[in-house]
Amino acid sequence: MKKFINDAVNVVPEALRGLGLAHREILSVHERPAFVARAPLAKDKVALVSGGGSGHEPLHAGFVGYGMLDAACPGQVFTSPTPDQISAAAAIVENGRGVLFVVKNYSGDVMNFEMAAEMATGPTATVLVQDDVAVESSTYSTSRRGVAGTLVVEKIVGAAAEAGADLAACAALGERVARACASMGVALTSCTVPAAGKPTFTLSESEMELGVGIHGEPGRRRVATRPADAVAAELVDAILHDLAPRKGEPLLLFLNGFGGTPLLELYLMFDAAARRLAAGGLTIARSLVGNFVTSLEMAGCSVTLARLDEEMLRLWDAPVHTAALRWGR
Amino acid sequence: MKKFINDAVNVVPEALRGLGLAHREILSVHERPAFVARAPLAKDKVALVSGGGSGHEPLHAGFVGYGMLDAACPGQVFTSPTPDQISAAAAIVENGRGVLFVVKNYSGDVMNFEMAAEMATGPTATVLVQDDVAVESSTYSTSRRGVAGTLVVEKIVGAAAEAGADLAACAALGERVARACASMGVALTSCTVPAAGKPTFTLSESEMELGVGIHGEPGRRRVATRPADAVAAELVDAILHDLAPRKGEPLLLFLNGFGGTPLLELYLMFDAAARRLAAGGLTIARSLVGNFVTSLEMAGCSVTLARLDEEMLRLWDAPVHTAALRWGR
Repeated sequence: MKKFINDAVNVVPEALRGLGLAHREILSVHERPAFVARAPLAKDKVALVSGGGSGHEPLHAGFVGYGMLDAACPGQVFTSPTPDQISAAAAIVENGRGVLFVVKNYSGDVMNFEMAAEMATGPTATVLVQDDVAVESSTYSTSRRGVAGTLVVEKIVGAAAEAGADLAACAALGERVARACASMGVALTSCTVPAAGKPTFTLSESEMELGVGIHGEPGRRRVATRPADAVAAELVDAILHDLAPRKGEPLLLFLNGFGGTPLLELYLMFDAAARRLAAGGLTIARSLVGNFVTSLEMAGCSVTLARLDEEMLRLWDAPVHTAALRWGR
Repeated sequence: MKKFINDAVNVVPEALRGLGLAHREILSVHERPAFVARAPLAKDKVALVSGGGSGHEPLHAGFVGYGMLDAACPGQVFTSPTPDQISAAAAIVENGRGVLFVVKNYSGDVMNFEMAAEMATGPTATVLVQDDVAVESSTYSTSRRGVAGTLVVEKIVGAAAEAGADLAACAALGERVARACASMGVALTSCTVPAAGKPTFTLSESEMELGVGIHGEPGRRRVATRPADAVAAELVDAILHDLAPRKGEPLLLFLNGFGGTPLLELYLMFDAAARRLAAGGLTIARSLVGNFVTSLEMAGCSVTLARLDEEMLRLWDAPVHTAALRWGR
């Protein structure tokens, strides 16, 4: 294992310290329990709190800031945050309008966010994201996994909360956005959790894992490597089969890298996915390309499509000012 | 070689097509010869044109837009753009105030930008970036290589050009910023140029290349893997030896990933570099962390320090709106 670390035990706290130093104008890092909150704290709005295992950066801490999250709770690498992290973060950012938890569908995350919700003194609601169409249940999840669609939920609901929507409206919108997103990924290589010291799984030089999870969980099937156009077609077709968008409906196409794939290839895959959509008469209204929901240094990528109605389009375009996503302000 | 490509010959044009589709509101992609220009074109300002081999994305095309470049000319992977690409781009974006070329110091780039300057009908000037302190000459360069400091030059001079500075002032500022930047990188793995099909160099599981170039050129020395703090100290100390900043002087600390290193590790390295600077009584006034000047999927990173005077600080903070760098607007 070759990594820029000092000690596998301290990877997450040391990285959080760096995040805090680099983005003092946006966020502050709290220790014991560890969470990242907006700086300064927002007032008079529903507080959005998310979190999950580390190793998926910039998700979630990179999305803390104006127009998106109020706090993020990072667990150890690929390990759920604890209920006390989540409840401490919620207590700090809650400002009288309630707390909305955005949770990716993994058993540990679901359980620990539930416990944090029970510990909360004010009103809370939860949006569960389960956008991964690859498999119907998986190593760490009952029913579908939550993956890159989580960014879309956090951006759109974050904009609504910023604009003053109440807790019930934010929760209802979050459910709608979560259902409007579908994703599927593919891995060319595994990744290595620092504390494990060896790759999570193995792939030969001639194999790829279609439908891989963001922790390296198995996907639909292991296949021989193939051209980018064929990979993009398989991902797009699986998503379209599930999402069934109408012709002319505005779609967000989000081409997400898993951390170890060059941007050059992500743009090439975006082109391939866009051509597949165009061949089906479908319309790309918004685009996003980059490493946003990652799996450490895994070489791979995912495609997310979101069916955006008028309200969602407007909220997607609304200003956002975070470490990893910034526009319009 | 496992990559998301269709054919090694078409990687760059296909990726450019994806870039153009994803960022229609910022740039347009021209074919034959290939270059990327702002859309719409800017008026009444010095036109900034850069370029170089592909494989370093988002450099340079990701920096085309308001407040930064007017055009970028991408060569094949790790191959200089041709003079006709550069002169075609310059002719399109030139708008009466002259053209400033920002060139990384590699022999092919220098020669081809010189030929393009000779072909230009209007006034041109050139800023040569050679911020890599690792080695005094290298595989593709006489004297120092140009690396991540190029981003700093493009951002600051881009802001000056946007504010109306004339060609001579932009060129003089560019020289000052280029001299104010120093960088050094380290590789944990090699990278594979698609057309070559095999890694550019090899490193064992227990080695790192200190001072590596962004094309995988040899650095200062190959060393045994060591903790992040020791790596950061070696990079920072080499840079400080060269740059000799004064205590209290405002510094930009730019922790750049080479493409295959997780953001988690980049933030950890930022923390390590920041602690090394603090130990020397030095002040970080501005920060940047991420994969901006990459070497395909190389695992590795570089540290860039820039001594920013008042004017440079103001121009660094000025609004920028490109695919890869966006703030303040």
